[in-house]
Amino acid sequence: MSHQSDTLHKPCGQTKGQGLRNQSPHPQVMELILRLRQTIEDYITQLETRHLQQDREPEKQGHSQATREQEAILVHLMCQVVNLLHSRATSSLELQLPLHSPDIRGDVGGGQLAQSPRGPDQLSHQLSDLETAFISYDLSNRGIDISALYHSTFQDFVAYQRDKYHGGKNTWGFINLGINENKLCVDLMTERLSRSDMNYIDDDLLQYSDWKGHAFLQEEVARFLTNYSKAPAQLDPENVVVLNSCLSVFLALTMVVSDPGEAILAPTPFYPGFTFASRLYSKVELIHVHLDSEVTEAATCHFQLTVGKLEKALLDARLKGRKVKGLVLINPNNPLGDIYSRDSLNEYLEFAKRYNLHVIIDEISMLSVFDEPFPFHSVLSMESLPDPKRTHVIWGFGISGFRFGALYTNSKDVASAVGAFGFLHGISGITQHKMCRLLQDREWIDNVYVPTNRSRLQEAHRFITNQLKALGIPFLNRGSGLYVWMNLKKYLDPCTFEEELLLYRRFLDHKLLLSPGKAYMCKEPGWFRLTFSDKPLHLKVAMHRFCQAVGAQQQHWLEKQVEDALKEEVPSLSSGR
Amino acid sequence: MSHQSDTLHKPCGQTKGQGLRNQSPHPQVMELILRLRQTIEDYITQLETRHLQQDREPEKQGHSQATREQEAILVHLMCQVVNLLHSRATSSLELQLPLHSPDIRGDVGGGQLAQSPRGPDQLSHQLSDLETAFISYDLSNRGIDISALYHSTFQDFVAYQRDKYHGGKNTWGFINLGINENKLCVDLMTERLSRSDMNYIDDDLLQYSDWKGHAFLQEEVARFLTNYSKAPAQLDPENVVVLNSCLSVFLALTMVVSDPGEAILAPTPFYPGFTFASRLYSKVELIHVHLDSEVTEAATCHFQLTVGKLEKALLDARLKGRKVKGLVLINPNNPLGDIYSRDSLNEYLEFAKRYNLHVIIDEISMLSVFDEPFPFHSVLSMESLPDPKRTHVIWGFGISGFRFGALYTNSKDVASAVGAFGFLHGISGITQHKMCRLLQDREWIDNVYVPTNRSRLQEAHRFITNQLKALGIPFLNRGSGLYVWMNLKKYLDPCTFEEELLLYRRFLDHKLLLSPGKAYMCKEPGWFRLTFSDKPLHLKVAMHRFCQAVGAQQQHWLEKQVEDALKEEVPSLSSGR
Repeated sequence: MSHQSDTLHKPCGQTKGQGLRNQSPHPQVMELILRLRQTIEDYITQLETRHLQQDREPEKQGHSQATREQEAILVHLMCQVVNLLHSRATSSLELQLPLHSPDIRGDVGGGQLAQSPRGPDQLSHQLSDLETAFISYDLSNRGIDISALYHSTFQDFVAYQRDKYHGGKNTWGFINLGINENKLCVDLMTERLSRSDMNYIDDDLLQYSDWKGHAFLQEEVARFLTNYSKAPAQLDPENVVVLNSCLSVFLALTMVVSDPGEAILAPTPFYPGFTFASRLYSKVELIHVHLDSEVTEAATCHFQLTVGKLEKALLDARLKGRKVKGLVLINPNNPLGDIYSRDSLNEYLEFAKRYNLHVIIDEISMLSVFDEPFPFHSVLSMESLPDPKRTHVIWGFGISGFRFGALYTNSKDVASAVGAFGFLHGISGITQHKMCRLLQDREWIDNVYVPTNRSRLQEAHRFITNQLKALGIPFLNRGSGLYVWMNLKKYLDPCTFEEELLLYRRFLDHKLLLSPGKAYMCKEPGWFRLTFSDKPLHLKVAMHRFCQAVGAQQQHWLEKQVEDALKEEVPSLSSGR
Repeated sequence: MSHQSDTLHKPCGQTKGQGLRNQSPHPQVMELILRLRQTIEDYITQLETRHLQQDREPEKQGHSQATREQEAILVHLMCQVVNLLHSRATSSLELQLPLHSPDIRGDVGGGQLAQSPRGPDQLSHQLSDLETAFISYDLSNRGIDISALYHSTFQDFVAYQRDKYHGGKNTWGFINLGINENKLCVDLMTERLSRSDMNYIDDDLLQYSDWKGHAFLQEEVARFLTNYSKAPAQLDPENVVVLNSCLSVFLALTMVVSDPGEAILAPTPFYPGFTFASRLYSKVELIHVHLDSEVTEAATCHFQLTVGKLEKALLDARLKGRKVKGLVLINPNNPLGDIYSRDSLNEYLEFAKRYNLHVIIDEISMLSVFDEPFPFHSVLSMESLPDPKRTHVIWGFGISGFRFGALYTNSKDVASAVGAFGFLHGISGITQHKMCRLLQDREWIDNVYVPTNRSRLQEAHRFITNQLKALGIPFLNRGSGLYVWMNLKKYLDPCTFEEELLLYRRFLDHKLLLSPGKAYMCKEPGWFRLTFSDKPLHLKVAMHRFCQAVGAQQQHWLEKQVEDALKEEVPSLSSGR
């Protein structure tokens, strides 16, 4: 070590430091710190020199070789000091990183709060009258924001939870076709989960597990995904993390691949749960890449995602000074029910690699592809990923009440960092066991669950789309997912988001929940997502209510037209006098 | 950022640097580097001062608070610079860090570094494991912080998970008496959970529930707490929220009652999980109210919490400009195993009311009181709470693998806002059902679980404390919780946190995990928490290893003494010549 330090120039305080070094009780730290100080001095000098050079030769913008070397040395020295200090201090938990300071944290709504009651990125200034009703002396500003966000996102869902339709007991309860939930195979699932192998309990299941999940489940997820994603080689269980929902996995990923205030590209229409997670915790901006419903020369199908659109959004964001760290894709898509072709997928991944973006790809609906002409390709099936360490797959089995989501990533660093989230987003051991047993039972999955699920999805899809056709409502006819993306703009007059909301409320008056396009950040008013993965009886009642609602909407227009006509007539009569 | 750097002294070259900062094409790097240089200057000064002090007072070996803070700032700044340099390097591709040379590992290399460029992921191969924990091309700054925090908090826990002691199969695996986990009644729990009523499944359990939890569980928790906390009136199920751990409930509470950068008082020694949650998400500062082990006129027992101490901490914090929003209490206490008397509890609550503080009180160990002379009083048992809408109770059943925690609060606003967290911290429906059935079975709880748990805790406590008495180790003899808080300072020489860490590692070498007091922010070195709620065989083997470890520690001293004596003898011999 000594010969290396000889190669450095003498720092101004070295004589003093040298003496100290020999006597210090922490000679290693001192040695490193002194070298680090010297390197920093040199680095500053070089940056200054370079700056002067640039003044003379403005075209010479690149880093000089010497500066690059200094940076390399800096990085390395700092790593060494970090680790030395950590090994001495943090492993005893003595050392607390000063993360409380808002400017270090980069968190929104931070330090100025002591003076001004609200931070800049806080939501309340945008709140409606209804929402401000939530202001409470018991809650902090952040608490009020969370409450308002929750209320605006979930108030109708909560109303549904408290007043659900039931064929025998509550025929005037809500039917929810606005939720991303498969209710078609609950009977199969109940039967399978009732078998005796599910009820096994051992000590480990009742105690803390590794925060990445129980090893048996990591292994089974890796085996399952190898098989069902058609991976070219066995996937590594060490790269799997299981958390208590796909949303938690998404959240954890954004937390570890981006810093607060940085951005991720999100093609819209787009699943709003991700937005909720970002606003609650990660403070990552989701930059909407708006897709168009029109088919053009560039877009050969509705709402087509092209690299051109991604690139434009990225460059626009950069021009505005945003730091874009990733791209999130949902495949099969929610809400479009769309599947990316292998070629498209590859183009998106190549684009991401070109710009050093992480790709977070949600494949939760992998097993909900029900129409053969549209084959599904998992990114895990690719022979070679363009940027494997920055490609992260989210997957779940699709039993919403299970609260289960899994990550597969080729980056050990990302898997390890996401594992930390198991401390706050863990799943009960008993549920982990049941999930493992389900995944192990390939015979049941291959011969019972997948084919039944597929045929029921087909049947439900057929029923709903036939009804929509009869009503003359356009929709995207894709072969996967649990929903139909339909265009109800013919019931809007004028075609605005205000009218879309009124139509949404009219469905609600008829005790039917659908999802308006606005919730998915769709840029054109009139689109709705309808989930068809519900029991036939529910679908029948729901479509009856649907017809009543649009009928009431048309009746309302008729009345309005008559009213307007009468209003017009009165002045003409009076003018005739 | 500016206010942070303002607090630093002016470095010698700052004027020069300041000018550069304003013109530099890399202002972020410059800002950080300048702060880093200043921090290094301060750190060196402090080490020197400390060294001079040690010359005068050789017994004063411990790190000063100021030095520790400098170290913390250093580590954080360095992490930031590393990542900034890295992210610039990889994203612009303009800068290739020449870290290819093997000699850069431990040392600083020269100009030859730029010869062969390296790909980003090649770097990690040449760095040690410790270094790769901090350097990663895949992670953001925040990701690196999270990874480092997780690694330093849980590395030994993960080692234990992968190599657990087992009487027959793995007799040289780790025994973990450093964890807050009751393993004494796993057999009872397994038997109860295996009965047929547990295996019920219905549609609702497999689907989304209200984010506050299933209504049936909210109702049962309210009934259960009414009974076991001896509440004067029936508790309201609407005030209950269930999440996937007590820690998640704590996190959600801090999120909704405080803003980022605000503070909560936390008497120490204190459960470190709360610190982890705060640092990961809520960014609330936990202000440590340090309790003393000594019995004095003001403190009639060890580590006594008094209103005077709380008040002093609050006023000190306010003087420093901190906004204190709450007080967190753990009753029965973790790690002390202590119970607050009804009078003390009332004093704390009155204090909190006086200063408009929320009180978050964790009563998870309510059912783990095993010694009658120390009766437990839940705040829910009070006839009238001083400030009911700001008093929030956390409770769990104590089956760690269940990932279950409940909130009871009289504030509907707080309950509603905490409910939002069910979206990301929810529990599976199946687990909710099982928990509900457990809580409903009062006969089993009253006649089987509680009495058996109590007698086994008594027995385990007796075994451990007898062993400690035989070894002459002082400990707090309280009648609740799962742990003994013991003083091992007689095995530290000198009595410093560095030595405490070495002793911790000596236990680890003997495959025994204990928790050092430093982890609980205890201000006196030498205290350890030992969890005794483990199987008798495990306790026996653990105490055998314990004796071996302290024996090895004493052997080490003896050898050191002989060595020192020999060293002294040589000069005296030579002087005798």
